[in-house]
Amino acid sequence: MTDPASSLEELTAQRDQARKDHADLVARGLKLDLTRGKPSPKQLDLSDALLDMGGPAVGADGTDLRNYGGLNGLRELREIFSEGLQVPTDQLLAAGNSSLELMHDAIVFALLQGVPGGERRWADEPEIAFLCPVPGYDRHFGVCEKLGIEMITVPMTSEGPDMDAVERLVAEDSRIKGIWCVPKYSNPDGTIYSDETVRRLAAMTTAAPDFRVFWDNAYAVHHLTETEHEIADLLSLCAEHGNPDRAFVFGSTSKITYAGAGVSFFGSSQANVDWWLASTAKRSIGPNKVNQLQHVRLLRDAEGLREHMRNHAALIRPKFEAVDKILGSELGETGLASWSKPEGGYFINLEVPEGCAKAVVAKAGEAGIAMTPAGATHPYGEDPTDSVIRIAPTYPELPDVEAATQALATCVRLVATEKLLADEQG
Amino acid sequence: MTDPASSLEELTAQRDQARKDHADLVARGLKLDLTRGKPSPKQLDLSDALLDMGGPAVGADGTDLRNYGGLNGLRELREIFSEGLQVPTDQLLAAGNSSLELMHDAIVFALLQGVPGGERRWADEPEIAFLCPVPGYDRHFGVCEKLGIEMITVPMTSEGPDMDAVERLVAEDSRIKGIWCVPKYSNPDGTIYSDETVRRLAAMTTAAPDFRVFWDNAYAVHHLTETEHEIADLLSLCAEHGNPDRAFVFGSTSKITYAGAGVSFFGSSQANVDWWLASTAKRSIGPNKVNQLQHVRLLRDAEGLREHMRNHAALIRPKFEAVDKILGSELGETGLASWSKPEGGYFINLEVPEGCAKAVVAKAGEAGIAMTPAGATHPYGEDPTDSVIRIAPTYPELPDVEAATQALATCVRLVATEKLLADEQG
Repeated sequence: MTDPASSLEELTAQRDQARKDHADLVARGLKLDLTRGKPSPKQLDLSDALLDMGGPAVGADGTDLRNYGGLNGLRELREIFSEGLQVPTDQLLAAGNSSLELMHDAIVFALLQGVPGGERRWADEPEIAFLCPVPGYDRHFGVCEKLGIEMITVPMTSEGPDMDAVERLVAEDSRIKGIWCVPKYSNPDGTIYSDETVRRLAAMTTAAPDFRVFWDNAYAVHHLTETEHEIADLLSLCAEHGNPDRAFVFGSTSKITYAGAGVSFFGSSQANVDWWLASTAKRSIGPNKVNQLQHVRLLRDAEGLREHMRNHAALIRPKFEAVDKILGSELGETGLASWSKPEGGYFINLEVPEGCAKAVVAKAGEAGIAMTPAGATHPYGEDPTDSVIRIAPTYPELPDVEAATQALATCVRLVATEKLLADEQG
Repeated sequence: MTDPASSLEELTAQRDQARKDHADLVARGLKLDLTRGKPSPKQLDLSDALLDMGGPAVGADGTDLRNYGGLNGLRELREIFSEGLQVPTDQLLAAGNSSLELMHDAIVFALLQGVPGGERRWADEPEIAFLCPVPGYDRHFGVCEKLGIEMITVPMTSEGPDMDAVERLVAEDSRIKGIWCVPKYSNPDGTIYSDETVRRLAAMTTAAPDFRVFWDNAYAVHHLTETEHEIADLLSLCAEHGNPDRAFVFGSTSKITYAGAGVSFFGSSQANVDWWLASTAKRSIGPNKVNQLQHVRLLRDAEGLREHMRNHAALIRPKFEAVDKILGSELGETGLASWSKPEGGYFINLEVPEGCAKAVVAKAGEAGIAMTPAGATHPYGEDPTDSVIRIAPTYPELPDVEAATQALATCVRLVATEKLLADEQG
């Protein structure tokens, strides 16, 4: 045990140093951005073959892809993604440029039409709720908030959502119609769901007969290391456990090809796919099949996709390594913070002492470092512990990632030491 | 007045000839399709520059269009379509590949969020209805049917919907929240709304405070003749008459560039645009801006668009002329049918004697001519007079259009003479 007086003295010195460092930082007038999980221009360059079709827009079956139709999306593209998304090609649909749209629309269709196995439309239920593992993805929560769906948080563990909590809640509360999951390299903490977590999600008893797992497999093939992590196959497990219609699987190429001009995927049981097609048939004239063919020509096959993703990893792994190294050297010995070391995905999750996250983000802002608002990882933007900060290192160039992380670490030192001193004196 | 006996004799002879002609037709084993308003491959060829961007995907303002964002759509594309759609660029959004999706989603947002000026969400109203001018577009009716919205028909006149009926209904029935309009070269009858019709739509008193005109200006620039017909500016007229939020304007390039890979547009008052963006911001990561830029490079400006549409007209006008000519020579003297002579758009509306349309389509089917199902021009697929047949001549090659029209005329002669004889004898 350290001597309290010397500890206080040391903390004061650390705080003073942090204040000086922060003042220097502000004086430097940086302008850096670690807010959003966007691919960098160099990553986008990997897909520039999309800009030139290099031949007529004719599908493998001879269809003129320029015209109307083809609600399921291009079969040859669905074949490429079947393996990575763990959905049989026949049960996988390829759609527009955003899987967020598909998730939103899945809830809209459920609200206005109901889903297979449901006793009524979700809009006709007195109340609806979704389980939200936290920290999680702000846009999932935004969809719920917009559509008037209550959000019930469950904590994330190193194996995925706390399944004891999930099982208890879904068994007793029939208002709970769904759970948001990013099962591989989760946003923001990089968690890979364990096989047991996936099995329990598939097997658990739910009070709502029309409960759905919203399986946003956004980072299915987005490995940062040479280990291409696999997760258990939710769709098959649901069928095995007598809940064949439980899983809605989503995926997209937004972080594979072009973030704004990619292709999204929906996969599920045949009954759910038929339900989806019946709803979209009244809405859509079919997806942009020309863009889908361009994706086929770029990626070729599942092996081509794997190679393409290795090229992404080569570009972004140094950025993740830099963040980890700088946080380690700046904060590793201080005990002021901990952070995730993801092996895939787009984010590093930084945990600071309780009550410090908002202040750290504010101090970073003063120094010209834009961070995702603290709290964004929680429903309604409210992190009850105010301790989670999401770092998105992919977009800026490496030197900027380094400078921004260094600056962020300074802000953590400043806010955390001030907090600790205030606690000591309070 | 003709002698009844000789008239009956003549009719019998006509019927016998039609029977023989139909039998010959069936024996020929044709396989032709006049069902859907699809551009032909040669029309699609006009836009094949879309397949090669011919340069980096960078917007006029320097934005990297490959990445996320840009919910409003590409400004330079909205500028091109502002004139044709009669919407100021700032109030015009460019979206995905289907305006049908936008119309569907406008109703979904209204159901789940309400619209500006409304007292509650449409989903919370006991009942909702839309006015459906008939004949009209089957997919409009399909959206209503899917979303549980009652459809109330009003007849079309040569100047647009029967405005006496429209004004009376919307004034007295607060369930009526909208009206479907295809104001220029309407589907299927090619009607151009008169200035007075547009003014009355803008000015009329509606019992529902949140009534909307769904202005599907699908054929805004799709002229078949050298006369580029103009219609009155609904959006401005709504503002002038104190109903600034009444108009939802929709458009798309589906029949300008690629039917399956074009761009759609939504235009309205600033309040409605803000409402739209607030809803889509939770759903979308922005539209496919790369495709939008490709459209800018293809069409260049409003004059480039006009020239492009003249090239379409040169390809399809001969098909419309052939239908008109053949119907004229086969049916013109018989009094058995009348049909529209559109100066734009994609359809010819054929009216046959009451109770004959389904039978004509069935007889055409026997002879290998696929026609849009009779009744598709009416809500729930039910044409109460069973007299309307929609002809879509753009997709097949000219000789096929000719052969199919000839065959169709034979079927009209057969069914109509049989009907008349049955009436005589009944």
